[in-house]
Amino acid sequence: MPTILGQNQYGKAENRVVKIVRDGDTHHIKDLNVSVALSGDMEEVHYSGSNANVLPTDTTKNTVYAFAKEHGIESAEQFGIHLARHFVTSQDPIHRARIRIEEYAWERITVPGADSRNVGSQDAGPRSAGADEVKHSFVRKGQETRVSQITFDGSKWEIISGLKDLTVLNSTNSEFWGYVKDKYTTLREAYDRILATDVSARWRYHWTDDAERMPDWEESYDQAREHLLRAFAETYSLSLQQTLYQMGSRIIDARDEIDEIRFSLPNNHHFLVDLEPFGLKNDTPDGAVYFAADRPYGLIEATVLRDGVEPRIPLDMTNL
Amino acid sequence: MPTILGQNQYGKAENRVVKIVRDGDTHHIKDLNVSVALSGDMEEVHYSGSNANVLPTDTTKNTVYAFAKEHGIESAEQFGIHLARHFVTSQDPIHRARIRIEEYAWERITVPGADSRNVGSQDAGPRSAGADEVKHSFVRKGQETRVSQITFDGSKWEIISGLKDLTVLNSTNSEFWGYVKDKYTTLREAYDRILATDVSARWRYHWTDDAERMPDWEESYDQAREHLLRAFAETYSLSLQQTLYQMGSRIIDARDEIDEIRFSLPNNHHFLVDLEPFGLKNDTPDGAVYFAADRPYGLIEATVLRDGVEPRIPLDMTNL
Amino acid sequence: MPTILGQNQYGKAENRVVKIVRDGDTHHIKDLNVSVALSGDMEEVHYSGSNANVLPTDTTKNTVYAFAKEHGIESAEQFGIHLARHFVTSQDPIHRARIRIEEYAWERITVPGADSRNVGSQDAGPRSAGADEVKHSFVRKGQETRVSQITFDGSKWEIISGLKDLTVLNSTNSEFWGYVKDKYTTLREAYDRILATDVSARWRYHWTDDAERMPDWEESYDQAREHLLRAFAETYSLSLQQTLYQMGSRIIDARDEIDEIRFSLPNNHHFLVDLEPFGLKNDTPDGAVYFAADRPYGLIEATVLRDGVEPRIPLDMTNL
Amino acid sequence: MPTILGQNQYGKAENRVVKIVRDGDTHHIKDLNVSVALSGDMEEVHYSGSNANVLPTDTTKNTVYAFAKEHGIESAEQFGIHLARHFVTSQDPIHRARIRIEEYAWERITVPGADSRNVGSQDAGPRSAGADEVKHSFVRKGQETRVSQITFDGSKWEIISGLKDLTVLNSTNSEFWGYVKDKYTTLREAYDRILATDVSARWRYHWTDDAERMPDWEESYDQAREHLLRAFAETYSLSLQQTLYQMGSRIIDARDEIDEIRFSLPNNHHFLVDLEPFGLKNDTPDGAVYFAADRPYGLIEATVLRDGVEPRIPLDMTNL
Repeated sequence: MPTILGQNQYGKAENRVVKIVRDGDTHHIKDLNVSVALSGDMEEVHYSGSNANVLPTDTTKNTVYAFAKEHGIESAEQFGIHLARHFVTSQDPIHRARIRIEEYAWERITVPGADSRNVGSQDAGPRSAGADEVKHSFVRKGQETRVSQITFDGSKWEIISGLKDLTVLNSTNSEFWGYVKDKYTTLREAYDRILATDVSARWRYHWTDDAERMPDWEESYDQAREHLLRAFAETYSLSLQQTLYQMGSRIIDARDEIDEIRFSLPNNHHFLVDLEPFGLKNDTPDGAVYFAADRPYGLIEATVLRDGVEPRIPLDMTNL
Repeated sequence: MPTILGQNQYGKAENRVVKIVRDGDTHHIKDLNVSVALSGDMEEVHYSGSNANVLPTDTTKNTVYAFAKEHGIESAEQFGIHLARHFVTSQDPIHRARIRIEEYAWERITVPGADSRNVGSQDAGPRSAGADEVKHSFVRKGQETRVSQITFDGSKWEIISGLKDLTVLNSTNSEFWGYVKDKYTTLREAYDRILATDVSARWRYHWTDDAERMPDWEESYDQAREHLLRAFAETYSLSLQQTLYQMGSRIIDARDEIDEIRFSLPNNHHFLVDLEPFGLKNDTPDGAVYFAADRPYGLIEATVLRDGVEPRIPLDMTNL
Repeated sequence: MPTILGQNQYGKAENRVVKIVRDGDTHHIKDLNVSVALSGDMEEVHYSGSNANVLPTDTTKNTVYAFAKEHGIESAEQFGIHLARHFVTSQDPIHRARIRIEEYAWERITVPGADSRNVGSQDAGPRSAGADEVKHSFVRKGQETRVSQITFDGSKWEIISGLKDLTVLNSTNSEFWGYVKDKYTTLREAYDRILATDVSARWRYHWTDDAERMPDWEESYDQAREHLLRAFAETYSLSLQQTLYQMGSRIIDARDEIDEIRFSLPNNHHFLVDLEPFGLKNDTPDGAVYFAADRPYGLIEATVLRDGVEPRIPLDMTNL
Repeated sequence: MPTILGQNQYGKAENRVVKIVRDGDTHHIKDLNVSVALSGDMEEVHYSGSNANVLPTDTTKNTVYAFAKEHGIESAEQFGIHLARHFVTSQDPIHRARIRIEEYAWERITVPGADSRNVGSQDAGPRSAGADEVKHSFVRKGQETRVSQITFDGSKWEIISGLKDLTVLNSTNSEFWGYVKDKYTTLREAYDRILATDVSARWRYHWTDDAERMPDWEESYDQAREHLLRAFAETYSLSLQQTLYQMGSRIIDARDEIDEIRFSLPNNHHFLVDLEPFGLKNDTPDGAVYFAADRPYGLIEATVLRDGVEPRIPLDMTNL
């Protein structure tokens, strides 16, 4: 036979699941987009169309919704672990499950005096809505999308989390000069420029084994995001590569549970507009006017990892 | 001649302009997308291709960037007023200018102790960055896009402002029942449902004349947005139409400077998932699991206006 | 009462309906996206939330699917007429219905000899698949989206049809010079440039009354599209406005059933790249290299109409 | 040092280049979106911000445009080979270049009699415009986007080509039954269903060495696309996996120059609408009405390869 089947996977993609938990009058929301990909003994369905080993993608969708009820959604990672374990352990032909999750954040709508109108006074746990927050009303936060990928092969776990579309900008403390000049180089050096990007980052957890203690996924995400933002803000940047490395190494240094991180950073160019034809000086130190360009854009990608660790995050993770 | 020319307009669309103002170490950012549309004595360019009356769209683009420097960007509305007045008063063939602006909000990145590292102690005006904010580092806010449309015909102004893509959700206090049932009706009545929408709203200002006192555009926007969110959160809703009307009338009541408001509200359906085939009760009072649907969606549109005022906001303003 | 309700409408938007008709082995496909908007006695649902006059949007969705079976989809316009008439005539509180439809075109996949493998020899009507066409296999055509809007108020019809996203380009026979120059003008005149646009057009039919003979909607669309393309190709253009007018007047002249047409034409700029710094001449007569820009872009909009006819197409029809 | 740098790459992404070649009055167009990614001795720019080894991304952009003039664009693959070779051989620190290209197809606008109006009679080469085609007027084809990825490490080439967004549909000859049923399975078996997908495919060429004879990239693309479409149309499908495998093996069998192919195929669900509540039978053999769903969707991915060949196409190539 001249042709053979290689790696293959299947499942239901983009199951949009919203879970509301009611804690008295205070409601909590989880808003996920869950994609399932299963692999295993699937040669026959490709060769002959026999579905004897195929759990329908429709069933994987049903499982997502049922598990949201049965297990709840403590965190995207924990939810994905429940799902991946289920598929691999409950179906013989399935040897590997990969769950990808996007999470959309919401915050509470605040209304002065809402607290007294909506709740009894004894309700004040750490996860409760604060004073002036309406306990069942939310506005979508709208910044980055949190992402995670949970993979299980029956014995070991691989957890990759991260975020995408976190748009940041420094209006100074960025330079670019001293680069290679060849016959196609026309760029002028810059000593005070805008540095802006849409951060896409994926970090891999050290945790791989049920016997080890699992990280606190929610806290780890919040902390990694915080370190990333601070490294962006505090780095005096001579290149976007330098900023990238600072963001990555800050997270690796600060978070023991994270071994590796990969970034894909578009350089969102803001070009100083030439206003001299109109008799105007567009002077950076004075404040300036920029053209925010769409395409093309620089694209800087790199992995930062703990020394001694083997890199495992795919180089093109666009769909995580 | 069997065919004639009707209404026409032209200009440069989607000029992306970013303005940084430096107030000592504290930077301020305005991030706009500006579209220019001019009308007037433009028959000839359509009939014969003569451009004798045509100010190039490239020139309208240059004017946007030059004005960002010359006049600054106090608010999107004020910036559009400068531009519209210029085009109509400086070019005889141009009788009407319409400026549409999208504005993207940014907030400062906070880093503990950032204040002391970045600024001198005397810097503390109301628009300054607060303690722990990096004075030149920003993260895009990512919620709604603020929009405005400024039209000038040489004597009168029409200012329409608003927002789009403000995604909100109430996880209770929404019902839907008592509706008409015909032979195609299968929907079951709902006594506790999720109500969610992406608010798109446009409001028209009373101000039309240079002789009148101009509203404070920034404060007016903030207040209208606040009233809209509160009305959404506080309304116990029997239909999305009722919620819409509450949002609109709250703004008309509270803001004298606004005469009319139009909403376009998709009903972002969250369907309770039937988990009974799996032996699970998906019970609303207990918290529940929902499928967040894409298409189709209900679409509710209406104008709310001050009694005695003539409605002027176009019914389809999708591109404002 | 200080605030009142203005124009309002509601319904289910974006019902994606695919209809397959089997003519022996030869299948025919219609692929539509149907949006319903109803108006009438709807004050109460806005003021008090009473749904007593409200036919649920879910019911309007059901009606779309049921009508695709009951009436078939001869054309988008005819299908919309069935729907609009039904809503206005079957429900007292509904006084006006507007149906918007997007249609996606498909063509047959061709395979040499497919005809003999798939059909009996007697099957050869004009709508049948040709020789070498697989009679149930389709590839989406992928060019423009056909659009239509059918409005009925109980006595008169308004039918607006058209297309969007038809991307066209002339690589010569386009100039731009002789324009107004003010202090912000830096553009250089062009005597041989690329002219490219994504055509968005809406045309209004003369037909308004059931008593008149209805146009052949399918043929009318094909012919209008053809005239539009030919006018684009054959016009030696001194401005995009001139090309727009030629496209519109060609259709008005050639198609008696069409009274008015409105265009929204982005000027998809293709800038000649300056290669002189690299010792290269980027010479238009010789063939040339262009940068295809995203934003900003010129935007040219105008109505062309039959003399004596009142214009009725809204100036901003972006969502038709 | 606790953290180190892993794989990294940089360059200018999404350079939109349009090349017009004039062959007398007959013009030819190539419309590409070119992304450059370079790797090599780039530690320092990450660690210290020194750009001493960094050829600016702006220079890589200039090179794309200059090469379009200097070398022309015979095919996307050949163009990428010129670029990749240049970067690796002209800059010591650069050890590897990856060029990704999207290509958008155009076809000529036809006008009866256009030939005689536009050209002399002697112009009739195989690449000339046909009779009735306007020789400088084009309409974008609008179906799939052709993609290619050219990688060079200084000695070996890797060429991966393919397409994305080719939307196809079979209205019969598709079944799905005999699958695994677990406690979460509710799906009913189907014996005559719509099968539809947006084909995304990437194939890898055998060619790796300048010493070997290079494939005819244009012909190879056309043939691979043709085989893919025919396999889709001719396969009586018991599962989308089976159809995928048929498409892949047909290409591997027929095209010696291709060693491996990977597919990512969403199952674009078309659900038969239940019309029984309205007293209607929605019968497949008779033609039927379907709801075309957005999300979730099945997602089927697999590699098909020549026996004995090592798979090298990344499993997630979404951005190729």
